[in-house]
Amino acid sequence: MSSTAGQVIKCKAAVAWEAGKPLVIDEVEVAPPQANEVRLKILFTSLCHTDVYFWEAKGQTPLFPRIFGHEAGGIVESVGEGVTDLQPGDHVLPVFTGECKECRHCKSAESNMCDLLRINTDRGVMINDGKTRFSKNGQPIYHFLGTSTFSEYTVCHVGSVSKINRAAPLDKVCILSCGISTGLGATLNVAKPQKGSSVAVFGLGAVGLAAAEGARILGASRIIGVDLNSSRFDEAKKFGVNEFVNPKDHNKPVQEVIADMTDGGVDRAIECTGSVQAMISAFECVHDGWGVAVLVGVPNKDDAFKTHPMNLLNERTLKGTFFGNYKPRSDLPSVVEKYMNKELEVEKFITHSISFSEINKAFELMLQGKAIRCIIRLDS
Amino acid sequence: MSSTAGQVIKCKAAVAWEAGKPLVIDEVEVAPPQANEVRLKILFTSLCHTDVYFWEAKGQTPLFPRIFGHEAGGIVESVGEGVTDLQPGDHVLPVFTGECKECRHCKSAESNMCDLLRINTDRGVMINDGKTRFSKNGQPIYHFLGTSTFSEYTVCHVGSVSKINRAAPLDKVCILSCGISTGLGATLNVAKPQKGSSVAVFGLGAVGLAAAEGARILGASRIIGVDLNSSRFDEAKKFGVNEFVNPKDHNKPVQEVIADMTDGGVDRAIECTGSVQAMISAFECVHDGWGVAVLVGVPNKDDAFKTHPMNLLNERTLKGTFFGNYKPRSDLPSVVEKYMNKELEVEKFITHSISFSEINKAFELMLQGKAIRCIIRLDS
Repeated sequence: MSSTAGQVIKCKAAVAWEAGKPLVIDEVEVAPPQANEVRLKILFTSLCHTDVYFWEAKGQTPLFPRIFGHEAGGIVESVGEGVTDLQPGDHVLPVFTGECKECRHCKSAESNMCDLLRINTDRGVMINDGKTRFSKNGQPIYHFLGTSTFSEYTVCHVGSVSKINRAAPLDKVCILSCGISTGLGATLNVAKPQKGSSVAVFGLGAVGLAAAEGARILGASRIIGVDLNSSRFDEAKKFGVNEFVNPKDHNKPVQEVIADMTDGGVDRAIECTGSVQAMISAFECVHDGWGVAVLVGVPNKDDAFKTHPMNLLNERTLKGTFFGNYKPRSDLPSVVEKYMNKELEVEKFITHSISFSEINKAFELMLQGKAIRCIIRLDS
Repeated sequence: MSSTAGQVIKCKAAVAWEAGKPLVIDEVEVAPPQANEVRLKILFTSLCHTDVYFWEAKGQTPLFPRIFGHEAGGIVESVGEGVTDLQPGDHVLPVFTGECKECRHCKSAESNMCDLLRINTDRGVMINDGKTRFSKNGQPIYHFLGTSTFSEYTVCHVGSVSKINRAAPLDKVCILSCGISTGLGATLNVAKPQKGSSVAVFGLGAVGLAAAEGARILGASRIIGVDLNSSRFDEAKKFGVNEFVNPKDHNKPVQEVIADMTDGGVDRAIECTGSVQAMISAFECVHDGWGVAVLVGVPNKDDAFKTHPMNLLNERTLKGTFFGNYKPRSDLPSVVEKYMNKELEVEKFITHSISFSEINKAFELMLQGKAIRCIIRLDS
């Protein structure tokens, strides 16, 4: 048992006091974990678009002050009552969506959308008592996605924490807890292209590059990257993308461009932008008879996906995925193992590394589209 | 070799001389089969909505005179040059869509949409020479779907003919060459509900009842029939349907009614009406996390399938199927075997049986919605 177990820990956290304003590194108090909770020492975290989106608080109910962060790696500091799966010292990845292992979704082999711990962007408190574990001078500071990893210590529900191989370097595998696994799983678990097949990836950000990486791992021979920003094409080559289409360069819909390139359509398409027009293009660019389109990117609230039903009747499949269909606790350790056995290349996603005190720079890099992933080192 | 091989055969056929006018039983001439063609003696045929639709010729280019008919069973009378898979005396089902066994689709395990012989409702001639094999007093009579089974003899491309077990009664299994296999395959090959699961079937005509039969065979425990015509519910019980919803009886969308009945949605839904609104309902009534909706019914030309993309992102799957994903030559014999080993109950689909001379009565029964399947006996 660590000497801090059962005690309030005072530590540094990057607190978002107001929407869109730079985070402030403050000393906060982190209460001990309650029943079915664990307290983690976060060593490395990275920034994902979702953090930025809710930090900007455009279009959602703002909830501040709040500690963002949900891609991270850390070590269990102490565990609450009833926690048997984890113990202090375990190496873990906290995950923005959980796995209670008891609901219909967790018991289904097909779903990872846990009824109890499914992603909830509005909730800023722990489900055990409806309160926060963070505070500063008695003022509660809200949680984010049940992870709040922009803090040296955080408290999570045990169902939102994945125990991984202790030999895995946390400064690398920390990025597997959200975007990279989302894209990778979309390909490996849902699109499942065969060796030698053709795959179109819409959007060459981190998630799309991870989807391409999945296609590379499975041996797809044509990996067509689609992006409105051609400056991304060079970097994408490292992820197996070997053909590029910028829809702006063509006078006809991109689905027609891709169908022309591929004798009728690609075998698989994976949409990683969230643009509903890209979703429609991704679906309509797959080949009839066997084509499968997988939607990953999160759409706007009022979007409508629209297509002629004959596109479906001609034996195309349209699927959506959430977190790459990975169950956080059951499956994420195996993604780490893919890195450990050199199947999955993680390093190439990490374009920047900064110290905790520089965290606002990570926001700038993302807003400028300059980083794939920027590691934030809480230990330095 | 039969004595008629190589000769023109004069026989009776039910000719549609004009759109929407009663068929006329005429004596026609049937030329011998050319290369890769076979001539069949048709013993039993039945009527499907597609025949009626093209006979009415509303909204398509009319092609008359024409011999309709595409659900049938018969015996090979003679074969043309290069035909090695079939020989005179073989029992066969002609099929409205073919399998050349050489194109990309035929070579794909996932597709049955043959490039060479895929359904073509506009073509009224044989692909070998672009001419008809039917004539009367020198006037060509057009083919339909490459089958034209409303004739005592017909000529088909060898790729559109499925050789079946000689012991199978053709007056029963003839109905497996279109609608019944379409619905059955949608369930067995595409929706694949697990034992004990819930399945909603939209449309309780022949195709929908066959989809329900598939769910019954696979052991689905809840089979929910959805139809605007409640008089169909009683008959549907024979096909395993054990709950019913008439959308007219409810003030909210049928997808919400079904979600309420099933704690969030059914495991599988199969749409067999062709109404785009029913397609949307079928998709939106499946459970998030694992639900699969399969579209079978053929939509109108200007329809748009429309849904919020979050319905997909929440891990629902939407697929279309064509002829139940059966490859006509490779797979249809196994459907006949399902009947032979008493797994599939075919008799209950056959509600009427008439002689060839009464063929116009079959059209009336279908237009009145009174028949599931009406067998037309060409041997009587």
